[in-house]
Amino acid sequence: MSQKRVLTGITTSGTPHLGNYVGAIRPAIEASRDQNYQSFFFLADYHALIKCQDPEAVHQSTLEIAAAWLALGLNPEQVVFYRQSDIPEISELTWCLTCMTAKGLMNRAHAYKAAVQANKKAGEDEDAAVNMGLFSYPILMAADILMFNGRNIPVGRDQIQHVEMARDIAQRFNHHYGEHFVLPEAQVDDQVAVLQGLDGRKMSKSYNNTIPLFLTEKKLKKHINKIKTNLLEPGEPKDPDSSSVFQIWQAFATAQQSAEMRTQFAEGIAWGEAKKQLFELINEQLKEPRERYNQLIENPAEVEQVLIQGAEKARQYSAPLMAKVRASVGIKPLG
Amino acid sequence: MSQKRVLTGITTSGTPHLGNYVGAIRPAIEASRDQNYQSFFFLADYHALIKCQDPEAVHQSTLEIAAAWLALGLNPEQVVFYRQSDIPEISELTWCLTCMTAKGLMNRAHAYKAAVQANKKAGEDEDAAVNMGLFSYPILMAADILMFNGRNIPVGRDQIQHVEMARDIAQRFNHHYGEHFVLPEAQVDDQVAVLQGLDGRKMSKSYNNTIPLFLTEKKLKKHINKIKTNLLEPGEPKDPDSSSVFQIWQAFATAQQSAEMRTQFAEGIAWGEAKKQLFELINEQLKEPRERYNQLIENPAEVEQVLIQGAEKARQYSAPLMAKVRASVGIKPLG
Repeated sequence: MSQKRVLTGITTSGTPHLGNYVGAIRPAIEASRDQNYQSFFFLADYHALIKCQDPEAVHQSTLEIAAAWLALGLNPEQVVFYRQSDIPEISELTWCLTCMTAKGLMNRAHAYKAAVQANKKAGEDEDAAVNMGLFSYPILMAADILMFNGRNIPVGRDQIQHVEMARDIAQRFNHHYGEHFVLPEAQVDDQVAVLQGLDGRKMSKSYNNTIPLFLTEKKLKKHINKIKTNLLEPGEPKDPDSSSVFQIWQAFATAQQSAEMRTQFAEGIAWGEAKKQLFELINEQLKEPRERYNQLIENPAEVEQVLIQGAEKARQYSAPLMAKVRASVGIKPLG
Repeated sequence: MSQKRVLTGITTSGTPHLGNYVGAIRPAIEASRDQNYQSFFFLADYHALIKCQDPEAVHQSTLEIAAAWLALGLNPEQVVFYRQSDIPEISELTWCLTCMTAKGLMNRAHAYKAAVQANKKAGEDEDAAVNMGLFSYPILMAADILMFNGRNIPVGRDQIQHVEMARDIAQRFNHHYGEHFVLPEAQVDDQVAVLQGLDGRKMSKSYNNTIPLFLTEKKLKKHINKIKTNLLEPGEPKDPDSSSVFQIWQAFATAQQSAEMRTQFAEGIAWGEAKKQLFELINEQLKEPRERYNQLIENPAEVEQVLIQGAEKARQYSAPLMAKVRASVGIKPLG
């Protein structure tokens, strides 16, 4: 196998916004076109169950996120695009890895430790409201990665530890039962574009400052008009480098367009005009994807079909690996 | 559903001995013939992985235990007899339940607490050598039970807590996602026959005092001759109630035969003669099963076939239930 495998999980909670697009979706889709890599993308709906126990939200988000990635150009012919819960081998492998994972390793997971800290601070029992999904989540994530022998795992800094844990678990399994798993490596891109939100802080659901990706034109315009600016009048020169409008502009513009906008700022462009141009720039890029997205949302069966085919493709990898893993632990046909 | 469901798991580790037969296998097979109950029996090979990380041992034990139960008269037409790892829904359900299980509940499991105690006593880290399989084992057991809506769960005293945990988890799931699971109840039989071993203590692998179930006649005779007796000579009256020979006799004899042996003890039967009669009694009962057992061990494909058919039968229950559970948590087809 000369192609390196890249594996990316997408948690199915919430509706994608411009920050997700610029920071994650767009670069991932671009990278998936590189023929030197074989890309696996999956909708992590088992993960979603840990935090989201609203069935309608899980279901709706799965549709929206799948539709968004497809509408934005993820090519399911070129990559392996599947829903985690369609791969029965994932939960089987999770159990096999569970028996090879030291509890002490899980005790050290950041997310769990943060929950314990918060409970202690609140004077609660250490494990108050901690569910076993949160606690053993790194094992499920290890199964996601090891199932497809993903070598390169593009993650944010907060996920490095989980990839290292997957590596630890793989090493222990390989050592005990023979070499079945490629050791994964976290691939952290420090250049990840962070988009500013309406209030100038990082665009994030938790700050409630996002611009959803697939608004109608009218609503997109409205949202862009809400981006915080200062009180400088038209004609007064403006500082692009402290402006969210300019920061967002840059994320969508060519170098040429950015240089031009910089000049307009120096020449005192009115905030209203700058926002109008920003809307046009973004709208131009999202117009076609938006149409495809709306089409897909109205035809969920079409998305389902793509995911079913993706699962078939994924299982061509997972089924034989799982058969090997089962045999290696002693679970195999008697005859 | 008027038939009550009874579910029994059999851990696939070790080779069955006379104590297992008298205390567990024989009564379970007898109970399975009661038409008022629908019996599910499964080989718990996922469980075996927690403690047994020797693949050959897991595999061999699965064969031996399946062959033993079949040879002793378990009728796979009448019951649902399957191997846990053949039911992919089990590990899927395990994950769904994991997200509904409080970590605090697992912290209180006896087996885990015992491991922590032992570590503390040894001056080790609390979780030293504790694997996540041991820690989250009650969730897997809950999945085993809830998957088939088992209502009556025959268990030893040490397993009552696990059934109660399965009940807790089911209640929490039902409360949150709707009524999917029957609440299971531990069914503890205080009359369980405990057989004495060669040294007069309870027959148990851990005491190394067992008589394996399917020895050759010659070896069976040898083992029986090793049962500890006192120094009373032939002709001296012997106390049946303090004798392992008599205790084992009773476990295989009719009331009539027991009364007769009691008389022989009073009349001073020689130990050698008593053991000879004991061998004949047991051998008579095990002769045919032993032949069937040896046949099956030599034809593992036949056992495999039975298990495959059992899995098909089991999945007629597990697949539709899992589909309902998936939909209830929000994992369902998009179209």
